[in-house]
Amino acid sequence: MERLTVAAIAELVGGTVRGDSEREITGVASLDRASPGELSFIARARYLSYLHDTRAGAVLVTGEWVKDLPETSAGIVVKDPQSAMQQVLTCFYKPAPATPGIHPTAIVPASVKVGDGVSIAPYVVLGEDAEIGDRVVIGSHSVIGSRCTIGNDVVIHPHVTVYDEVILGDRVILHSGVRVGKEGFGYVWKDGGHRKVPQVGGCVIESDVEIGGNSSIDRGSVGDTVVKAGAKIDSLVHLGHNVQLGRHSITVAQVGVAGSTVVGDGVVLGGQAGLGGHLQIGAGARVGGQAGVTGDIAPGVTVSGYPARPHREALRAQAAFFRLPEFIRRLKRLESAIFGESAED
Amino acid sequence: MERLTVAAIAELVGGTVRGDSEREITGVASLDRASPGELSFIARARYLSYLHDTRAGAVLVTGEWVKDLPETSAGIVVKDPQSAMQQVLTCFYKPAPATPGIHPTAIVPASVKVGDGVSIAPYVVLGEDAEIGDRVVIGSHSVIGSRCTIGNDVVIHPHVTVYDEVILGDRVILHSGVRVGKEGFGYVWKDGGHRKVPQVGGCVIESDVEIGGNSSIDRGSVGDTVVKAGAKIDSLVHLGHNVQLGRHSITVAQVGVAGSTVVGDGVVLGGQAGLGGHLQIGAGARVGGQAGVTGDIAPGVTVSGYPARPHREALRAQAAFFRLPEFIRRLKRLESAIFGESAED
Amino acid sequence: MERLTVAAIAELVGGTVRGDSEREITGVASLDRASPGELSFIARARYLSYLHDTRAGAVLVTGEWVKDLPETSAGIVVKDPQSAMQQVLTCFYKPAPATPGIHPTAIVPASVKVGDGVSIAPYVVLGEDAEIGDRVVIGSHSVIGSRCTIGNDVVIHPHVTVYDEVILGDRVILHSGVRVGKEGFGYVWKDGGHRKVPQVGGCVIESDVEIGGNSSIDRGSVGDTVVKAGAKIDSLVHLGHNVQLGRHSITVAQVGVAGSTVVGDGVVLGGQAGLGGHLQIGAGARVGGQAGVTGDIAPGVTVSGYPARPHREALRAQAAFFRLPEFIRRLKRLESAIFGESAED
Repeated sequence: MERLTVAAIAELVGGTVRGDSEREITGVASLDRASPGELSFIARARYLSYLHDTRAGAVLVTGEWVKDLPETSAGIVVKDPQSAMQQVLTCFYKPAPATPGIHPTAIVPASVKVGDGVSIAPYVVLGEDAEIGDRVVIGSHSVIGSRCTIGNDVVIHPHVTVYDEVILGDRVILHSGVRVGKEGFGYVWKDGGHRKVPQVGGCVIESDVEIGGNSSIDRGSVGDTVVKAGAKIDSLVHLGHNVQLGRHSITVAQVGVAGSTVVGDGVVLGGQAGLGGHLQIGAGARVGGQAGVTGDIAPGVTVSGYPARPHREALRAQAAFFRLPEFIRRLKRLESAIFGESAED
Repeated sequence: MERLTVAAIAELVGGTVRGDSEREITGVASLDRASPGELSFIARARYLSYLHDTRAGAVLVTGEWVKDLPETSAGIVVKDPQSAMQQVLTCFYKPAPATPGIHPTAIVPASVKVGDGVSIAPYVVLGEDAEIGDRVVIGSHSVIGSRCTIGNDVVIHPHVTVYDEVILGDRVILHSGVRVGKEGFGYVWKDGGHRKVPQVGGCVIESDVEIGGNSSIDRGSVGDTVVKAGAKIDSLVHLGHNVQLGRHSITVAQVGVAGSTVVGDGVVLGGQAGLGGHLQIGAGARVGGQAGVTGDIAPGVTVSGYPARPHREALRAQAAFFRLPEFIRRLKRLESAIFGESAED
Repeated sequence: MERLTVAAIAELVGGTVRGDSEREITGVASLDRASPGELSFIARARYLSYLHDTRAGAVLVTGEWVKDLPETSAGIVVKDPQSAMQQVLTCFYKPAPATPGIHPTAIVPASVKVGDGVSIAPYVVLGEDAEIGDRVVIGSHSVIGSRCTIGNDVVIHPHVTVYDEVILGDRVILHSGVRVGKEGFGYVWKDGGHRKVPQVGGCVIESDVEIGGNSSIDRGSVGDTVVKAGAKIDSLVHLGHNVQLGRHSITVAQVGVAGSTVVGDGVVLGGQAGLGGHLQIGAGARVGGQAGVTGDIAPGVTVSGYPARPHREALRAQAAFFRLPEFIRRLKRLESAIFGESAED
């Protein structure tokens, strides 16, 4: 991060300064670790005690909490401090661009088409007839199958496997350990054993999709698995064959989606949620963490629990659940009053 | 896939043709994407709307739904369209055989015994005294430990780790990112810290087992972890030390099985189910998705929920659960009638 | 394992011998597989039937069960047979030390500082300015980022990714497929898409931490993710950005911890448990398997269920839950008695 005044940061994020606007900032840190030369932010009430004690040179803060700032910190008052911090980070922390070039240990068959400004790290293995767009970065040891098509500005971290014929759009990011396009889990019982159903479909990861570490995405059995543009997937997620994830959907860590389920645009799947196969999840639906989805969800509906139900209904039932021992006591009291001593436990 | 007539496909799957039996088919696709030269199938009522609009040249269909087929599609009437499609795929999509040979970058110690027709990809690393059967395929970067024994016709995808002394039977398939035979999770508290218990057992993966991407299987602590013949394991599954998985069992994605649990033959473990340690799961039992198994399960029993209970009991309790707010209202009405205004909430 | 008499083993573990103390033992095995030259142990009543039939030459056993031992086995009577077996294993199964040396295919930039007695396997890739302590072992294909600091006696198994600037203490163990320091999952919605928040924090894995296969640990967004000394993490675990795991904490397989949650010292997180973001889990708390934690937990408290509640409360509610159909029947009986035939179902 370059050297910036508090005033310059305020201008960037459209905020107003309280305190020393000429102070110079050279980095960012959390409230409890920031030094007088660093910028911090506060986005949640539970961190107010850190705010009181912070040594940060400047803090992105809402109008409500600016009064809680120590005198030693300049305040930059904004509506949404988290978003403002993101703007600062985006402007000042440019990731160092990978140096273009193909490492001599990378295996690149003559049939591969490689775009301009591509960076291919040591021990990468590319398959026959793969097409690699411009400015693509492929990390060490990653394996790209035959006949894959990779768009521009894609970043593939180390140890990724992209199976044959997978299509990646532009600006896709695959973190370390991602497996894209592996054969799905399909068998038919025959002659005393599970016989593998050939998985002959494809796998399409559209533009601006990001997939977290060690996630696994199966190719289609017949037809394609598709992750649509702008969808963001966290770590250790599993998508079965023929799943479709909608545009701009958010899939938090350790979610599992069984085969052929169609997830609409803008859907949010909370961490560790599990979705059964052959379901329709409507656009804008939200699925709570650990929810178990066993049926379709209408657009815009929020569900939680197991089996997943509309969130308000689930909350009401849960509240009652923990009062069950009390209700049973009251039931017995009624039974005593009506029938005399209850014969039942 | 080679060029085939509708009649030839019908003969293969034992079906009867409705419509143009001489039409030529050159591939397969899902109902909504198939072109007039392609074969599709329908296995579930929820896809009937796709059937009405399909452009597929031919469709595998039951007698019940053949009337829903558009005039432009030939029907091949069978009892089980999904199974029929599997037959077609198995016959006509032969995976391209790997070219035998050992890539010059693979590290193969002189002490390794390599069978006939083996294919070893770039950057594979084999340990001392490993034994590799005939026609084994090992994908790029996979690491095989010392003294491993690998049967015939095994397929190991890229980026797999097989730890020392693991035994793989014939026709085992390990997908990308699988870890087999890693040390299990065992400690004893001593002198102010968790002390690692050496994990000196083995790990045996019997014939015809398939293990999905990024799954992790621990070796035994004392004694072996064993996955028995024909068991199929999906992606991101964890098996602890000394687990036994039965013959022809099915373990869906993201299941976790804690140490020393014995899973019987033919058991089905639904996605994200969790099984505690030292349990006995009887042959033919079925565990629902996300179920939390905390006790033994008798053979043939289906369980679900947390803690897992027989499925019917779990369903009845769940049904009542979501009506709890109503029952509480009725309880209060009774209290008012008997005791006057209820003092309780 | 070297050759040892039963008497020598008894002396090591502080036990007393029943039977032939001069018998020689050359290995260990589970009760059902041990041969007359091997030592076994029994730690749970459910394995008593194996004890009756064991062919083990000697068995570590409590005073209570020594009478169940067959005549052919010597007994070594101890208080805690499992702990005693751990002592035996620790003494007699020394893992073969890795041969020091850097394989010629490893990529080690001139700027890397490498300690004494280091073993670097084939195809390892080290980044610029990394510092590697003494006696460190790095397995095949592992990738260590630029400016990482790795302590002494660290063991990194094959196929591990350590991202740039990660700090590993002494004696850290990373199993195959671990990803440490990857960018976390953070976006802000802007201009019609999720915009990535740069993840500029660090990742610190303190001394004596062990991390299981295919686990994924994000670096901080602003500030660090920290796994404190002596914490043990099992396989397929996910830790989000800025998570802190306490000293000597235990995190069982497939747990997920969302961003910024602080887990205290000595906490135990059961398998597949999920913890929401920005929570405080007090020291010594215990979280049951599959529990869904949505709020803070006080020190020392045991919780379970979804949403997680104190374990006793959760158990009482669960017990009532499965009796719900019965209680509803009793409610209807009361309604019939008071109101005549119930109009409601």
